[in-house]
Amino acid sequence: MREAYQEQLGKLAEELAAMSTMVGTAMEHATKALLDTDLSLAEQVIDDDLRVDEARARSEEHAFGLLALQAPVAGDLRTVISTIHVAEDLERMGDLALHVAKAARRRHPQPVLPEDVRPVFDQMGKIAVKLAGRLHDIIQNQDADSAHAMEAADDEMDDLHRHLFTVMMSSEWEHGVAAAVDVTLLGRFYERFADHAVAVARRVVFIVTGQMPND
Amino acid sequence: MREAYQEQLGKLAEELAAMSTMVGTAMEHATKALLDTDLSLAEQVIDDDLRVDEARARSEEHAFGLLALQAPVAGDLRTVISTIHVAEDLERMGDLALHVAKAARRRHPQPVLPEDVRPVFDQMGKIAVKLAGRLHDIIQNQDADSAHAMEAADDEMDDLHRHLFTVMMSSEWEHGVAAAVDVTLLGRFYERFADHAVAVARRVVFIVTGQMPND
Repeated sequence: MREAYQEQLGKLAEELAAMSTMVGTAMEHATKALLDTDLSLAEQVIDDDLRVDEARARSEEHAFGLLALQAPVAGDLRTVISTIHVAEDLERMGDLALHVAKAARRRHPQPVLPEDVRPVFDQMGKIAVKLAGRLHDIIQNQDADSAHAMEAADDEMDDLHRHLFTVMMSSEWEHGVAAAVDVTLLGRFYERFADHAVAVARRVVFIVTGQMPND
Repeated sequence: MREAYQEQLGKLAEELAAMSTMVGTAMEHATKALLDTDLSLAEQVIDDDLRVDEARARSEEHAFGLLALQAPVAGDLRTVISTIHVAEDLERMGDLALHVAKAARRRHPQPVLPEDVRPVFDQMGKIAVKLAGRLHDIIQNQDADSAHAMEAADDEMDDLHRHLFTVMMSSEWEHGVAAAVDVTLLGRFYERFADHAVAVARRVVFIVTGQMPND
């Protein structure tokens, strides 16, 4: 019984790690589509989001199967429920990559981003991809120490997000309101992507240590 | 066993219905704080958010207790897991009300909203409060028909959200970039509040009918 539980839980962790890779790739491609005004890459991200949704539904089914067949209690029960939350956060990260891709498509063939914020989004994209990549390892190896390190990358993202506002509010912003609206929404998508990545990492810490990390 | 399960599940539904009321009130007050530049009301919403978080933690504990003690299977299992998702959506709705209140506080004593979008936010606030109020009844009575009707209110919210963009993009917008950034983010908070409300309603349909409603 216990062995079957461990084996099924291991498979579930692999599925979630694979989902991290999917949403990391989605955000990498969405950022490239945004920076390079690459319509076909944007459309690929939009099409591929369905695969993230399917992976989430599948992992939730497997978690249900585990609960129904093994009826885990105490810590095991919490672990399985956590996988359901993790899958939800990962799906949401996929949605945010999808929003970025849709913004790139909506303005095509015009670029969405004014020149002076391109480097900021380039950086935000890199941090998002790094966070998703770390998540893969954290989920796979149940590595609570690396999970703590996610917060630093999230702080970097928050700094970049704040910097965007400074740029838009400055008297040198000459791209008008429409560009500011796009930049505001896009900035928020990257910031939320990082928030969800941190939430996943915190769940893994909880699974490993039995305690939620302090805020 | 079955009776104890039903009783505990009934209590859990009551807790979630009470949470709907809390987040509806939070959004009502946050909107009033925003429209009336009422600092003390904004701070009340900010302070009260902790109670939503606590209510969510408590309902999740009760769901865990149900799973551990009753080890429900099949439909019952899905119902209990759904309550965990519902609590998560409701907490997020509380967070969004919190964001609105924080925006009101950040600009105080200046109003956040230019005169020409005030009626839009007044309307968005009313729809948000209506959605949360309906959720209370839907959760309490497991009313799948009313849950379907939520989509219409969400469409209204989406229309208002789109209208905001039209107003900001028009040549008559004379409030500059800073106000547009605030309006963009605030519009998104209301729109997401409605999305989460609809997600909760869909879960209730799922609990009652065993099927997720079609998109």
